[in-house]
Amino acid sequence: MPTTQIRLASRPHGEPQDSDFETVETELPELADGQVLLRTIYVSLDPYVRGRMSDAESYADPMQVGDVVVGGTVCEVVESRSDRRSVGDVVLAYTGWQTHAVVDARATRRLDPEAAPISTALGVLGMPGFTAYAGLLAIGRPAEGETLVVAAAAGPVGSAVGQIAKIKGLRTVGIAGGPEKVRLLTEELGFDAALDHRSPDFVEQLVEATPAGVDIYFENVGGPVGDAVLRRLNTYARVPVCGLVSGYNATERPQGADQLPGFFRRILTKSLTVRGFIQDEFVPTHHEDFLREMSAWVRDGSVRYLEDVAQGLERAPEAFRGMLAGRNVGKQLVQVGPDPTR
Amino acid sequence: MPTTQIRLASRPHGEPQDSDFETVETELPELADGQVLLRTIYVSLDPYVRGRMSDAESYADPMQVGDVVVGGTVCEVVESRSDRRSVGDVVLAYTGWQTHAVVDARATRRLDPEAAPISTALGVLGMPGFTAYAGLLAIGRPAEGETLVVAAAAGPVGSAVGQIAKIKGLRTVGIAGGPEKVRLLTEELGFDAALDHRSPDFVEQLVEATPAGVDIYFENVGGPVGDAVLRRLNTYARVPVCGLVSGYNATERPQGADQLPGFFRRILTKSLTVRGFIQDEFVPTHHEDFLREMSAWVRDGSVRYLEDVAQGLERAPEAFRGMLAGRNVGKQLVQVGPDPTR
Repeated sequence: MPTTQIRLASRPHGEPQDSDFETVETELPELADGQVLLRTIYVSLDPYVRGRMSDAESYADPMQVGDVVVGGTVCEVVESRSDRRSVGDVVLAYTGWQTHAVVDARATRRLDPEAAPISTALGVLGMPGFTAYAGLLAIGRPAEGETLVVAAAAGPVGSAVGQIAKIKGLRTVGIAGGPEKVRLLTEELGFDAALDHRSPDFVEQLVEATPAGVDIYFENVGGPVGDAVLRRLNTYARVPVCGLVSGYNATERPQGADQLPGFFRRILTKSLTVRGFIQDEFVPTHHEDFLREMSAWVRDGSVRYLEDVAQGLERAPEAFRGMLAGRNVGKQLVQVGPDPTR
Repeated sequence: MPTTQIRLASRPHGEPQDSDFETVETELPELADGQVLLRTIYVSLDPYVRGRMSDAESYADPMQVGDVVVGGTVCEVVESRSDRRSVGDVVLAYTGWQTHAVVDARATRRLDPEAAPISTALGVLGMPGFTAYAGLLAIGRPAEGETLVVAAAAGPVGSAVGQIAKIKGLRTVGIAGGPEKVRLLTEELGFDAALDHRSPDFVEQLVEATPAGVDIYFENVGGPVGDAVLRRLNTYARVPVCGLVSGYNATERPQGADQLPGFFRRILTKSLTVRGFIQDEFVPTHHEDFLREMSAWVRDGSVRYLEDVAQGLERAPEAFRGMLAGRNVGKQLVQVGPDPTR
């Protein structure tokens, strides 16, 4: 069985270029006992993958040059040598940027297309939604009446953070880039206030939008936006840190005076909690509740989600670059093959 | 009744100078109902007071020029118009740098000279000891077999942190300045390893002393020592931040490249918890346990303490400067008048 793969051809320096990827057609091995042949329907594009393209130390091992680019996928089972999965099953897998793959059936999770659109397993009901849920509840510890700020708020993590916080009774302030996304934040995603970080008076807008300061800053971008929000934090504020996408393509050391001593002073004088996390940590404690609560919220419309679907595997590099630059609106997916549930 | 006071004459720029203080003799008011007249025995000198001499935003309101310099005190009641306190009682108060004061009896706590030396109410059984206890247990969450690092380890907070961590079964690494203190750390205070941050090969020594990395860094100094330890942190490490004494006299913005983005990257990739705190926060939840446990540990010798006692109120400014520069060994006190319990 042939598969088309996009592999890492070289480690990107800064923004990934087309030349950092190579498309390869190759033959998959015969299925062994317990294995399934998968046909990819959707590939998830996520910021953390940029980190795995570099060989700098991170929380996950880096990809090697020549590896298929990694990523979560929703696939259809087209051949099975496992009792666990039948031909026609739609499953969640981690097969990356390729059209087909052979994996152990135990490395897949069956999805129920009746319960929710299958693509949501990569977004609001998948890793990004869980990152939002676990980080907000376990680290943010939201309390009614508090103020939450989240950046990349039209993205899959930020939009879920804002809507869950709203359910919990917080004032929610979303930050995004450009007027179209900013409009979506209040009109579609229920944020109380929405700010465009490209506005020349962004900092003044932020101050106006947070008259009582900020109790939770869900940090997923870093950079100047993060700096501005950190200055608004109240005593006992919590800062879950799940990503720093603004710096993922950085190639030079930051310029300007050292802000670390001042940041530690704020941590001390405001009794701040700053806590990095990867969602895996909270799977044992929070994943069951997440699936139950989030599915219900999606069904009853209290959590909405946006998707940005590029068509065709060959569009993955361009869509990936776009996501790192914030050109997507909502969860960035690549549709690799037909969705049998639509 | 006359009192001699040392007042803030001007806000220090950098290290406090003699000219920033003025000594004033003044007459205390007559006692009103419910008040007591106190004679100061010991004054506590603590790093946070340097912060209150500046008008920069902090967790406590700054002193005003002309105010008596603040500080915890152990005093003897010499006159009482309250049923709560009798003449001869030894009490904990917050009357600062003066020989006598009139305060509401309810602003004092009676000490039992039979239970522990009265000076310990300002050190190991007082605010510094409680800072160590609460920050280590509530934020550090020590687990047997982990590695703890603390700086200013011969000081009242650091020495308590190290010894409590030892009781909890951790490997303890103390950092101090100069060979005398370093010797005390292992010989008197039970640290497993002790490092001199003035050594030219301090960073190499730190790496050697923490072969399994660092799980808890109790941050009370900041600066280059803090930077070096932060680089040794393990995944899920905890960093309680109770002070940054190395920067308290700083007058210029830090030089050098911005380290904040790199620090956030470490927070993310290592799932770090960085948490500022002031001990007050934990009084409702931890103070009763602290008094019970810590008193027992002091009595049975599992927690030892060192004191550095300057003689005479007039020595307070010099002793305060010395403490900020790390010239004290153990808890810095000023003895203002005779100790009736010795």
